[in-house]
Amino acid sequence: MNTTINAFNGGVTSAKGFKASGIHCGLRKNKGKYDLACIFASHRCPTAAVYTTNRVFSSPITVTRENLADGMAQAVICNSGNANTCNGDGYETASQMGELLAEGLGIDKKDIVVASTGVIGVPLPIEPIKNGIPALVAALGDDEKAETDAATAILTTDIKMKKTAVSFELDGKTVTIGGMCKGSGMIQPNMATMLGFVTTDAAITSAMLQKALREAVADSFNMVSVDGDTSTNDMVCVMASGEAGNNEIAYENEAYTLFVEGLKKVCTYLAMAIAADGEGATKLLQCNVINFSDKTGARLLAKSVIRSSLVKAAMFGSDANWGRVLCALGYAGVDFDPQKVDLYFRSKEGAIAVCRDGKGLPFDEDEAKKILLAKHVFIDCDMKDGDQRATAYGCDLSYEYVRINGDYRS
Amino acid sequence: MNTTINAFNGGVTSAKGFKASGIHCGLRKNKGKYDLACIFASHRCPTAAVYTTNRVFSSPITVTRENLADGMAQAVICNSGNANTCNGDGYETASQMGELLAEGLGIDKKDIVVASTGVIGVPLPIEPIKNGIPALVAALGDDEKAETDAATAILTTDIKMKKTAVSFELDGKTVTIGGMCKGSGMIQPNMATMLGFVTTDAAITSAMLQKALREAVADSFNMVSVDGDTSTNDMVCVMASGEAGNNEIAYENEAYTLFVEGLKKVCTYLAMAIAADGEGATKLLQCNVINFSDKTGARLLAKSVIRSSLVKAAMFGSDANWGRVLCALGYAGVDFDPQKVDLYFRSKEGAIAVCRDGKGLPFDEDEAKKILLAKHVFIDCDMKDGDQRATAYGCDLSYEYVRINGDYRS
Repeated sequence: MNTTINAFNGGVTSAKGFKASGIHCGLRKNKGKYDLACIFASHRCPTAAVYTTNRVFSSPITVTRENLADGMAQAVICNSGNANTCNGDGYETASQMGELLAEGLGIDKKDIVVASTGVIGVPLPIEPIKNGIPALVAALGDDEKAETDAATAILTTDIKMKKTAVSFELDGKTVTIGGMCKGSGMIQPNMATMLGFVTTDAAITSAMLQKALREAVADSFNMVSVDGDTSTNDMVCVMASGEAGNNEIAYENEAYTLFVEGLKKVCTYLAMAIAADGEGATKLLQCNVINFSDKTGARLLAKSVIRSSLVKAAMFGSDANWGRVLCALGYAGVDFDPQKVDLYFRSKEGAIAVCRDGKGLPFDEDEAKKILLAKHVFIDCDMKDGDQRATAYGCDLSYEYVRINGDYRS
Repeated sequence: MNTTINAFNGGVTSAKGFKASGIHCGLRKNKGKYDLACIFASHRCPTAAVYTTNRVFSSPITVTRENLADGMAQAVICNSGNANTCNGDGYETASQMGELLAEGLGIDKKDIVVASTGVIGVPLPIEPIKNGIPALVAALGDDEKAETDAATAILTTDIKMKKTAVSFELDGKTVTIGGMCKGSGMIQPNMATMLGFVTTDAAITSAMLQKALREAVADSFNMVSVDGDTSTNDMVCVMASGEAGNNEIAYENEAYTLFVEGLKKVCTYLAMAIAADGEGATKLLQCNVINFSDKTGARLLAKSVIRSSLVKAAMFGSDANWGRVLCALGYAGVDFDPQKVDLYFRSKEGAIAVCRDGKGLPFDEDEAKKILLAKHVFIDCDMKDGDQRATAYGCDLSYEYVRINGDYRS
C-alpha cells in the first residue's frame, strides 16, 4: 500500500461532500469581521467530537453532546464574539441556533453541531443569527472562498486564519481530510478555547471515527498550551461523508492506521498554527521529550516545560536560561532522574547543548542567542531512560500577551 | 488564657536567643547588594523545615535535610545570587558553606541550615563565602540593623524586604515569633523560590515544631502563586530557642494551638508580602473561596483562580472579566456545581456582585473599574455548598513581569 500523505493548502471543503460558508451577522460590532460559520454535508454522516475538560462548560457543548449521541450529524453552526456560557439562557439559545440552521437547510435539528466562542457570561442575542441564516445558507459553497470565509468567521483574537488539508490513497481511491480551527488565548492541553472542525470523505464508521479522533487529538490539540487556561467551550469535531469510495473502515486495520496518520497530520498542523498564533506570541516553541520510560510521563514533562511562564518569558528574551527548563521538568509531577537529563536548544540557526547529566555545560552565549532568536525554537529534553517520546507546542510570553488580555472585553 | 496576638515590625532577632547578620561577600557584582546572611542561636535548639516539592532540588536542600535529621540546629547560612543547583559540585559547595560557618562560629557542622537562591546551573564560587565568613560572624547582632541586613541579603529580584514579628502570652510569659523571607518570581503553591526563616523563643519540642510549621505553611506559603513555577530551592525553616520560659509544648494542647496561630500569622504576613512583591506586580490579589464542601477542594479552587494568567492579566487591566474566574474554578480539578457559584470583586473602594448562581449579573462597569484599580483586590467565590474556606494570594501579570523574566541572567 502506498502510504504517502500529501499536505496542501485546503480546508473543510477539500473533502468530497462538504460545503461551507461564513458571514457577518452582527454579533460583532465590526462589520468587516465575519461572526457566523456553517459546514454542510451532502447527507447525514458519521460525526465524532471531543470536548473541554472544564467543569464549567458552554451550553453549545451540552446541545452538541445530545445531538451527537447517535454519532451522526449533517451540519455545523458556529458563532464568534460570544461564548454563550454562564449567561442563564445559554441552553435555549444554543438549541435555537441549531434549530434555525436545521430549518434553513431543511434537515433534522438533531443533526446539528453547535459551537460558540468569545466572551463568557453575556447573553447571546439570537436575532442576528436568526436574521443571518438565509445569507449563511445562500453563501454555502465548496470552493476556496467558502472554506476561507468559514475559517475566518470562527476567529476571535486570532491574527491568522488556520486551515489545512491532506490527501492519500486508500483502496485505490483518493481520500481527503481537511480542517480549520481557531484559538489563541486560553489555550492549554486538553482542549482550551479551541475549536477545530475537520471533514473527510473517507468511509468510516462512527465508532472508528471517534476512536481515530481521540488518538489524533492526544498528540496534537491536547499538546498545545498558550497560557495554561482551559476554556469552557473547546471542541474538536470531525465529519466523514464516505464519498471517497474506499472500503468502509470498521475495525483497526491498515487503512485505519493510515487514516489516523492523516488525521493526526491535519490536527498537528492546526495545533502548531494555534501555538504560533498564541496571543502576543513572537515565536513558536516546540518541546520534545525523548527517550523516556513512558508515554504519559513524556507528555506531562513536555507540557510542563511549554506552559512555564518563566521558560516562556526567557524564550521571549532569547535567553538560554535552561535552568528554568530543568525546573519545569522537575515540577511536572513525573518521577525521573535529574542526573540523567541532557538539554538542547535548537532552531534553523543550529543546535546547542546546554546541560548534560543534569549539570550545566559551558556554551557560547552569542551562539545560543542566535539560535533562540529564530521564529521556531525547539527545546529538546533527552531523559536517557527509555524509548518513549512526546512533543508539546507553545509560544513565548510577550508584552503583547499582557496588553491583549488586560482588556479583552473592550 | 489571654490569646491576643500582637504583630509588630520585627524580624528574626525579635525572639530571645537569636542574632543575625547580612553582608556583601562578592557573589553579586553590585557591591551595594548584600549576598550572604546568617542567623545564630544562643544554643543548639529544635529546628523544623519544609522543602520544595520539585523533583529537581538544590544541593543546599540535600545538606539541610541531612543536618536536620535530628530536628536540631544552631545556625543558618544563606546566600543570594546563585542557587547552587544543577552545577555538578553543588553538594560539596553546600557542605563547605555549612562547614565554614560552623568553624567561624565554633559549633558543630551538623547544626547548620544551608540555603541558596539565584541562578540555576552555575557553579557557586566558594572563595567569596570563605573570605566573607569572618565579617559575617563579626556583624552578628540582635538589633534592628542586624535583622534588616539579614533580610536584605537573602533577596534576589525582590523589590522590598520582607519581615515581621508577633508576640503573645503563654503561661504568663511573652513568646515572640519573628521571620523574614524572600521570593518574587517562580512563586507557586508548595514552596516556590521562596525562602523563609522564622525564629521563636517559645519552648517546644522538635516534633511539635515540625507539626506546627506544616500547619502554618499549608495556609500561607503554600497558598501563594506568582507565576505557577515551583522552584528547586524553596525552604521554610523555624528555630525555637525556648528562652521565653513557657512550659515546653510537647503535645497538642491549648498552648500549641495558640503557637500555631502565631506562627500562621507570621507566615501569612510574609506570604502576602511575597505575593504583593511578585515580579512586576502592580497589585495584590486575594482569592477567598467560601462555603465549600471540603478544605482541600477550597484550596485548589482558590489557587486555580490566583494562578490563571488570564485572570491575572485582567486584574492588571482592572477589567471585571469574571468569566475567567469561573473558568479557572472550572479547571481546578475539583468537582462543584457551577450553577451555585456567586462571584464578587472587592477592595477598599467597595464591593460588587458580578455573578449569581453561575450566571452573569448586570453591573456598573465604572464602579467595577474603581474597585479593581485598588492595590489590594479580593476575588470572593461563594460556592454555597458547605462551610469550608481557603484563601490564596497572588498578583497581577504585567508588562514588567515579562521584562524582568525576558532576561533575568543579564
